Amino acid sequence: MKATLIHGTRDIRLEEVPDPTVQLPTDALVRVVAACVCGSDLWPYRGVRPTTSPQRIGHELIGVVEEVGSDVRTVKPGDFVISPFALSDGTCAHCRNGVQTSCERGAWFGSEDSEGVLVDGGQGEYVRVALADGSLVATPGMPDESLIPSLLTLSDVMGTGHHAAVSAGVGKGSTVVVVGDGAVGLCAVLAANRLGAERVVAMSRHADRQALAREFGATDIVAERGEEGVARVTELLGGIGADAALECVGTKESMAQALASTRPGGRVGYVGVPAGGPELPIGQLFSTNVSVGGGVAPVRAYLPELLDDVLSGAIDPGRVFDATFPLDRVADAYAAMDERTAIKSLLRP
Amino acid sequence: MKATLIHGTRDIRLEEVPDPTVQLPTDALVRVVAACVCGSDLWPYRGVRPTTSPQRIGHELIGVVEEVGSDVRTVKPGDFVISPFALSDGTCAHCRNGVQTSCERGAWFGSEDSEGVLVDGGQGEYVRVALADGSLVATPGMPDESLIPSLLTLSDVMGTGHHAAVSAGVGKGSTVVVVGDGAVGLCAVLAANRLGAERVVAMSRHADRQALAREFGATDIVAERGEEGVARVTELLGGIGADAALECVGTKESMAQALASTRPGGRVGYVGVPAGGPELPIGQLFSTNVSVGGGVAPVRAYLPELLDDVLSGAIDPGRVFDATFPLDRVADAYAAMDERTAIKSLLRP
Repeated sequence: MKATLIHGTRDIRLEEVPDPTVQLPTDALVRVVAACVCGSDLWPYRGVRPTTSPQRIGHELIGVVEEVGSDVRTVKPGDFVISPFALSDGTCAHCRNGVQTSCERGAWFGSEDSEGVLVDGGQGEYVRVALADGSLVATPGMPDESLIPSLLTLSDVMGTGHHAAVSAGVGKGSTVVVVGDGAVGLCAVLAANRLGAERVVAMSRHADRQALAREFGATDIVAERGEEGVARVTELLGGIGADAALECVGTKESMAQALASTRPGGRVGYVGVPAGGPELPIGQLFSTNVSVGGGVAPVRAYLPELLDDVLSGAIDPGRVFDATFPLDRVADAYAAMDERTAIKSLLRP
Repeated sequence: MKATLIHGTRDIRLEEVPDPTVQLPTDALVRVVAACVCGSDLWPYRGVRPTTSPQRIGHELIGVVEEVGSDVRTVKPGDFVISPFALSDGTCAHCRNGVQTSCERGAWFGSEDSEGVLVDGGQGEYVRVALADGSLVATPGMPDESLIPSLLTLSDVMGTGHHAAVSAGVGKGSTVVVVGDGAVGLCAVLAANRLGAERVVAMSRHADRQALAREFGATDIVAERGEEGVARVTELLGGIGADAALECVGTKESMAQALASTRPGGRVGYVGVPAGGPELPIGQLFSTNVSVGGGVAPVRAYLPELLDDVLSGAIDPGRVFDATFPLDRVADAYAAMDERTAIKSLLRP
């Protein structure tokens, strides 16, 4: 089959690799219907995280089950499934606590699982999904083609934006600021709105992203950054700042923006993968009682409730995909996101 | 009147100072019935925070109102009152949000208020309390002498321990570890128990403090520290660590202990004044989804509910006072805490 490998900085290739097979009783073999490029894939793409040898890449996918191992009970061949970006057994203490990203037997796409067997990367024609029962969520029947983009966001970005909002305690009447206008930031706007926020300020300097943020429920847009951005957010939100700041980038500047935009006693929910950012300033946090929560999103925990809302049409997070590429143009899909000509690239094998 | 001043490292003196008077319409003049020494007073006492010129000191007190300014409505001469360690107007946005420590007009004992007038330190015969309406809480009638110690803890340590527990989300069934066996740590044990925690592990190496922790509801004691301490806590708490870690010291080591003792997805509530500690390790927090909240405790927010429990006898936090000194022996009161011969020193003017 064909799958994507990263060879180095800005070197993405679709190559012939061995066909995956069911190797463990808990495996499922899934034919990929749609996959995509993640903002975090851009760290190795840009060389921020160096690639030392060619590696499978991609961790967001939906597809159809082709075959399952003998222990698999919750999905069967023919099922349409959504895979969270982190695989988990669903039974360990962490999974039961809703922190599937810390699963004791957890596995990641493109890496070896706890049995030492490679889990294929998501940007390919097929994947061996480890821990199928704990990980995969089947839709009721075959979904309409129009739902493909939104279903695909449940694999990562929608669940991740939702995690930022949950981690920051967003609820009915909250005032919220979202730092970051990538797919995750936009989904965080949608999540905050869905959770009942009264005001949602999206920080964005791009007209297309501002427009989508508005569609997703942003009540205000702030284009300024740094101290000017903080002043503008504070002014918009009662002169004191946000109850909740959702940090969806992962840089030093974005975390500083989020912390300074939060009112005393408020909460920062962060999901941006920390990329060379500094540690958190404990003195500032102590004096303001601003708390910080979040991390790598356990999207599996949120999948059922978000799936219900996608199927009912209550939310349409798939709008974050503004470019679609066939799998053999995967290099272009990366370039479009790298050059910011696309918010998020969808891939169709 | 007589009041305490700090002149430098381990140099505490009771001196004659001008009698305080009502100077602003929002002031109350309070005769101090009991005061105490705070763990945070030991930072300047030990020279960790240098004293450049003689300063009034002390911020925990209860007493009787002698006189009030013309605008004061909620307390009157003759009332027995508890003063939180931070003074607040009770009306600004932060006060309404329950973060009185960020009050826009807030004042601190031993420093100038927002009008530029000195607020006396708490370790004296009398204090001018600024922002009396927002700050002071009167008891119903004159309390029994036996309640003095517990009422005094509501000025700081009980409310601060409670803030650690609230910030860490402690609730019914929580598993909790408390790092720090000073008065705040012990009150945090009591607070966690009061909030319904199922398991409360107190980390302590001192027999007297271990015994009091048990009285306050600790189900387990761990004497080990560092990696051994983490291993022991993890073993006691389901093999995964605590839902909530309450950090009540403020050092680099205590925060590391708290973070490493928390299960993935759990929360650290911290109230130890950060003393030269490092910043928080964002990479560790991100991968484990451990969140961190807390800060300088808005004890005024918690005073009414905790007062009810003290008056009903439901809690007896005053047990943290194991040494009482007349005000003219204030230097001995500091030395007892510095040398750890006392958990907490009570002062009677």
